[in-house]
Amino acid sequence: MRRTLLGIAAAAVMAGLAGSADARTLQFQATWPAGSTLYDNFVMWAERVKALTGGELEVKTMPAGQVVPAFEVFDAINAGVLDGGHAWSGYLQGRHPAAILFTGGPGGPFGLDMIDHMGWYYEGGGKELYEEFWKNEIRLNIHAIPVLPAGPQAFGWFKAPIASLEDMKGMKCRQTGIANEIWSRMGFSVVNMPGGEILPAAERGVIDCAEWVGGVEDLRLGFHNVWKYHFAPGMHETVTIADVLVNGDVWESLTEEQRQIFESAATETWLRWWIRWQKDNAAALKELREKYGVIIKRTPEDVLKAFLKAWDDLAAEHANNNPFFKKVLESKREYASVVVPAKRFYFPPYSFAADIYWPPEEQ
Amino acid sequence: MRRTLLGIAAAAVMAGLAGSADARTLQFQATWPAGSTLYDNFVMWAERVKALTGGELEVKTMPAGQVVPAFEVFDAINAGVLDGGHAWSGYLQGRHPAAILFTGGPGGPFGLDMIDHMGWYYEGGGKELYEEFWKNEIRLNIHAIPVLPAGPQAFGWFKAPIASLEDMKGMKCRQTGIANEIWSRMGFSVVNMPGGEILPAAERGVIDCAEWVGGVEDLRLGFHNVWKYHFAPGMHETVTIADVLVNGDVWESLTEEQRQIFESAATETWLRWWIRWQKDNAAALKELREKYGVIIKRTPEDVLKAFLKAWDDLAAEHANNNPFFKKVLESKREYASVVVPAKRFYFPPYSFAADIYWPPEEQ
Repeated sequence: MRRTLLGIAAAAVMAGLAGSADARTLQFQATWPAGSTLYDNFVMWAERVKALTGGELEVKTMPAGQVVPAFEVFDAINAGVLDGGHAWSGYLQGRHPAAILFTGGPGGPFGLDMIDHMGWYYEGGGKELYEEFWKNEIRLNIHAIPVLPAGPQAFGWFKAPIASLEDMKGMKCRQTGIANEIWSRMGFSVVNMPGGEILPAAERGVIDCAEWVGGVEDLRLGFHNVWKYHFAPGMHETVTIADVLVNGDVWESLTEEQRQIFESAATETWLRWWIRWQKDNAAALKELREKYGVIIKRTPEDVLKAFLKAWDDLAAEHANNNPFFKKVLESKREYASVVVPAKRFYFPPYSFAADIYWPPEEQ
Repeated sequence: MRRTLLGIAAAAVMAGLAGSADARTLQFQATWPAGSTLYDNFVMWAERVKALTGGELEVKTMPAGQVVPAFEVFDAINAGVLDGGHAWSGYLQGRHPAAILFTGGPGGPFGLDMIDHMGWYYEGGGKELYEEFWKNEIRLNIHAIPVLPAGPQAFGWFKAPIASLEDMKGMKCRQTGIANEIWSRMGFSVVNMPGGEILPAAERGVIDCAEWVGGVEDLRLGFHNVWKYHFAPGMHETVTIADVLVNGDVWESLTEEQRQIFESAATETWLRWWIRWQKDNAAALKELREKYGVIIKRTPEDVLKAFLKAWDDLAAEHANNNPFFKKVLESKREYASVVVPAKRFYFPPYSFAADIYWPPEEQ
């Protein structure tokens, strides 16, 4: 129960070493800029690693572009140019269709929510499939750990309110990733552009609507200066999770204790960042409504249903063409088949108590 | 970037010490038996502490009764008879009405869900109020860390189906804690008894309904052998969180790194145990329905609304009589006023995608 004097002396020696020559610094880069709330998650995780290792291991966090451009982070980690990164695997979708399934995917998929996805990942075989993805499918020497639940994301902003799928015809919207692909296949007019170009395009009337993130990120971008109608929820990124990525050789070079700390800090950050983000998003929504007069509206159900139908068709095509995509999709379907109906039964609908205490003003 | 030879030698010395004389073992006891799924959470946390400290710190987990009876855990920790524990502060409700608010409380309260409660705790001032509770209100030398989200809990089991609050009149139900208190005040016939006595009482016809936990815990207790009607959701424990408790002097004697590891492991366990429990509960519900023919039913809305109304009246009384209860309740109300409406807007209703992929058979 008591430390020996020898133990205390040795600990003092180690503490000295840990603070100087023995400390190890790893070079990690994100796929987002330093000003983003997503980058805050990266910093939070790195700070936890430093605290939990007593300063023995330090992760130097760098924004997109500091060593390589954002989308080159994956190859740079694989090549050992970076020790690791903080990235969303959805950016690999062009290289492998299954990438999106490890971030979540439209409607969950199959109704899985953010927590359920973590259940599938850790309790339903997802982690093992993700390891197979890196090793045998996309062939990058990377170890991934889920860290960033960046959703559910809003449906977006509109210059005029919509009440049905029909109302969206003729509108030109900024969409990215899988949402862009699905809307395109549905015959709608969509265009992709970086975040910084959305508002100028909206002001010039080049686009009539746009999807970004929601909450604090949307407030910072300034949608309310151009449009007044903000719609939620969306079905495109109900679950959308990014990871800490570690070069495989760097991962092997860590002690067992350090690897456990990387994992623990990632799960801790996942939850702690998410609750902070939800609070910040809530404050931003309040500001958007009360200070800027933004009108919030519920996304028409037929729009969301049509979107899920189009995604299911796309997923079926990928499953036909790619055995690994099919394997991952079926794994998620099987997990959802048991967990989703049970959760619907045991968890009260969020709106039940919410509506009693905070009657909706506008939907 | 490279460990020095001296560092490696010193690390080897330390590793040797950590494995023997330098390792410290703490004695912790739970308020539940070893066979409970809640105890699994305790073991998971202790295992993470051991892994993250490289074996330097070990928490010996003990079930209720091993050192002191379940409800004496709090005082035993305070007195230093135990180094710490794994306990639900709701058991302190008889000593201070605010205890229930730190575990959650009926309907959240104010519509907060399990994640929102963690938001209030870490981002909304809850942690500071809990520290005040231990130090100045209940006056126990204890440091608490949330670790166990044991809900949302089911409404319970019935010998015959109910369709309204009226149907519950004349029934005698086993209820415990705040649910027992609220139903009693509503004029219903309720009785409290330990878990092991519920089924014998049901078989003898002494009770007509009972609340326990839901899922795997209910399956183990064997309700399906006596009754066929299982109802959810409940409003009594939508949020119900238990903690790791540490004697204040033991907490101060830990290194800063060890304290950080206690916290990190607790948040990691909170999420990792919850997803495992949800999976196990889902499998149990499937077994109850498919193997034992249990009929699942949705709790009538008027029952849940009446329950929340009675809780609100009770909470208002406590707030009138106890300034600290009022302070905590108002803190939760203020946090909920911003976060709950925003979450209702941004998060899709769980049933939306769930109903598309898994059409409800019976509600």
